[in-house]
Amino acid sequence: MNGTPLRSLRREVLAANLRIPEAGLATLTWGNVSGVDREAGVFVIKPSGVSYADLTEEDLVVVALDDGRVVEGSLRPSTDTETHRCLYLAFPSIGGVTHTHSTHAVAFAQARRPIPVLGTTHADTFNGPVPVTEDLTPEQCAKDYEFNTGQVIVQMLRSDPRRAEEVPGALVSRHGPFTWGPTATASLENAVVCEAVAEMALHTLALGARLGDTSDPPPHLLERHYTRKHGPDAYYGNADAVPAV
Amino acid sequence: MNGTPLRSLRREVLAANLRIPEAGLATLTWGNVSGVDREAGVFVIKPSGVSYADLTEEDLVVVALDDGRVVEGSLRPSTDTETHRCLYLAFPSIGGVTHTHSTHAVAFAQARRPIPVLGTTHADTFNGPVPVTEDLTPEQCAKDYEFNTGQVIVQMLRSDPRRAEEVPGALVSRHGPFTWGPTATASLENAVVCEAVAEMALHTLALGARLGDTSDPPPHLLERHYTRKHGPDAYYGNADAVPAV
Amino acid sequence: MNGTPLRSLRREVLAANLRIPEAGLATLTWGNVSGVDREAGVFVIKPSGVSYADLTEEDLVVVALDDGRVVEGSLRPSTDTETHRCLYLAFPSIGGVTHTHSTHAVAFAQARRPIPVLGTTHADTFNGPVPVTEDLTPEQCAKDYEFNTGQVIVQMLRSDPRRAEEVPGALVSRHGPFTWGPTATASLENAVVCEAVAEMALHTLALGARLGDTSDPPPHLLERHYTRKHGPDAYYGNADAVPAV
Amino acid sequence: MNGTPLRSLRREVLAANLRIPEAGLATLTWGNVSGVDREAGVFVIKPSGVSYADLTEEDLVVVALDDGRVVEGSLRPSTDTETHRCLYLAFPSIGGVTHTHSTHAVAFAQARRPIPVLGTTHADTFNGPVPVTEDLTPEQCAKDYEFNTGQVIVQMLRSDPRRAEEVPGALVSRHGPFTWGPTATASLENAVVCEAVAEMALHTLALGARLGDTSDPPPHLLERHYTRKHGPDAYYGNADAVPAV
Repeated sequence: MNGTPLRSLRREVLAANLRIPEAGLATLTWGNVSGVDREAGVFVIKPSGVSYADLTEEDLVVVALDDGRVVEGSLRPSTDTETHRCLYLAFPSIGGVTHTHSTHAVAFAQARRPIPVLGTTHADTFNGPVPVTEDLTPEQCAKDYEFNTGQVIVQMLRSDPRRAEEVPGALVSRHGPFTWGPTATASLENAVVCEAVAEMALHTLALGARLGDTSDPPPHLLERHYTRKHGPDAYYGNADAVPAV
Repeated sequence: MNGTPLRSLRREVLAANLRIPEAGLATLTWGNVSGVDREAGVFVIKPSGVSYADLTEEDLVVVALDDGRVVEGSLRPSTDTETHRCLYLAFPSIGGVTHTHSTHAVAFAQARRPIPVLGTTHADTFNGPVPVTEDLTPEQCAKDYEFNTGQVIVQMLRSDPRRAEEVPGALVSRHGPFTWGPTATASLENAVVCEAVAEMALHTLALGARLGDTSDPPPHLLERHYTRKHGPDAYYGNADAVPAV
Repeated sequence: MNGTPLRSLRREVLAANLRIPEAGLATLTWGNVSGVDREAGVFVIKPSGVSYADLTEEDLVVVALDDGRVVEGSLRPSTDTETHRCLYLAFPSIGGVTHTHSTHAVAFAQARRPIPVLGTTHADTFNGPVPVTEDLTPEQCAKDYEFNTGQVIVQMLRSDPRRAEEVPGALVSRHGPFTWGPTATASLENAVVCEAVAEMALHTLALGARLGDTSDPPPHLLERHYTRKHGPDAYYGNADAVPAV
Repeated sequence: MNGTPLRSLRREVLAANLRIPEAGLATLTWGNVSGVDREAGVFVIKPSGVSYADLTEEDLVVVALDDGRVVEGSLRPSTDTETHRCLYLAFPSIGGVTHTHSTHAVAFAQARRPIPVLGTTHADTFNGPVPVTEDLTPEQCAKDYEFNTGQVIVQMLRSDPRRAEEVPGALVSRHGPFTWGPTATASLENAVVCEAVAEMALHTLALGARLGDTSDPPPHLLERHYTRKHGPDAYYGNADAVPAV
């Protein structure tokens, strides 16, 4: 295993984890970001229950992608580690995963409603509603619960594999949002967007947009916003900007 | 009385009180944390009406557990002191108590609705709804009001003593949340969680989860979340993490 | 005029104005505190349109209580100065006045609903609902508009002069909250409480407390909370605490 | 082209852009301010996708007013640049434009509801509701999308050209707010007000002001507030205060 890429991955994963409290996405220690090094076959993730203020690069835990064993680190990795691993195995194009309990995204997860596409802020990042999974079954809760938390996301998206690239996030029923992206940083930024559009959607729904008097946004508007930031014709940002999914 | 444990208890109680404004749980001076030294028969609590910015270890007041007299300190203890004392006497396993007027938990208290279990964020800390007490009677208000504020909590939980351990908090009707835990720090963190899940619940209810179209969370999911953080099979956190209730 | 008391009043008024943005009560420059020196027959108030970050003691304007002329200061006083003057003339016991456009109190003013007493947080400071005035008439808007803004408050409270002491604030219809108190600092703290209880009330109402299934708080509870902080039997706070109204 | 005015314009545009995150108006990089130098025939605008923390005066991009070509700067200008240019061409009196995705203003845009005039906070800045545009057509989205985003605002206001001066902002349907003013700073402050009054309106509507039991604010009140800050009889603020539209 080449140490240098891991050092830079550790740095990125630490920085992304520290952005969780900065962006107001977490209460206490509720949130974690990981980043994968597919060549090395490992991912780097936040340790369990450590506060962001105390977190150092050394605290991060390196976990094997194939079987989830701890490869480096003296602390126990996040309890959500197996969920991250499941998503990395299912979606080969992603490089980072973020999980938070951000307030408004959790409200949609608890209400078991997808976050609907109500405007361009949503369409800039998510090319469709952020979907909500089925409840886990008693069997899925009894054994390998955290891996199965990833599985309900994977099963939901299986019928349309492109969706995981164009809608880089999902709500686990009664639980909260998981987002992903090409890098740890991108997955964190998608978590920030997921919370922001959830809050906007909640207020929009409160204003009665869904009470029958308002049509859905026109598809040509949504498509324009998604494609100006993503894909071959994208023209948003500058060279050194964070790559989008 | 051994000075050293009290010094360390004072330090912890001061730090926990300072986290009240940091966590956005208090307006002005509305919130207080205490911690008990059962061997010494005393607890340490915030003085009344002193702002967090000015608070020092020396300002903290040491109160006798048996009769509520001030043992150390030149300031008057929090007006809520007798409520803390009542809870310490009723629940021998707790080591800390926190009271705040945090916005969303107060809204549930004022609406006289328990905070319902709508998802895993709640179940991670509270193994059931956060209950709301009966109103105090005119007699309970006229004499020993603050002690009686603790009594209405104790009476509510009397029928099921395990509940105070698994649901470490309650809403006093028309008033606000009291939370507790094995330490002052844990009681403060339970206050943070109480406010967070109250806000999430308020938004979830606004999204219509309770309007007939949504079932309750499945018990196997809630149990999994509670037991992975609490009890003999817990696997959340690391050695030096804050102990949960 | 004795310079020393004014110097200390200026210091207090400056500090109270700076707490407006700290407490999240103002957008841009929307909020002002004044304090009166009744012996000198003047009050000290924030200048109009100056940002809090730039505000100095020298910028504060000294205004004559009897006719509103500027006595000291090179800047124009707050446009709301005549409203403050009207309140000082009508309520001889008050020493400070605060006006803000804090979000939730303004929402009640815009909805023309008093802030109802839904719990002890409110009763700790306001011994009754925070009332909302009548709309100003075209005549009251055409001439001496700002003084008349004070007049609609005074007229509303005229029938019960004790109310201005026990409920130290009011909402001007379609406009926002004015609060007062024995000092500039106390008036500012009452503005903080007014916003906090407005937000709590808004969420409580959203939870359905007023949809027929919830009774009003029992009067004995509210009275206990008001009297433990106010009047001859008060036992809240410590010697050097900010005096309450 | 005279370098000195541009240097001072760059400084103002940088400062106004940095106030976007300070005022809580933006998530990630979602928001941009520009300022125009009509004599030089150019405007200065934020580059695309650069975070506020990293933004320097040198990063700002100078764009020609007549055809939108980049005149100075090595970075790509904001994707919204053509919308700004369209507004400058249509409204010759304006000197600055701000675009944000601030939460509550976006909620009104997504619900396709104008922000109604519910009180004096709104009337102090906007002499009427903040209007919402029609949806862009498929043709307007397919070609020159960003310029057409400005066009739908211009078309909406064409029938009443004075409106753009007295209501210095508009909501683009399903998208968000654009505000303007005599300077870049004024356009930013109008964005701050737009978000604040949107939040107040949302809460006011939640309190039922529009459920049939409340009348509209009386026109004489609104006019008084607008004219005391704007026009020949304005008496708000001090000499060095930021000029209002």
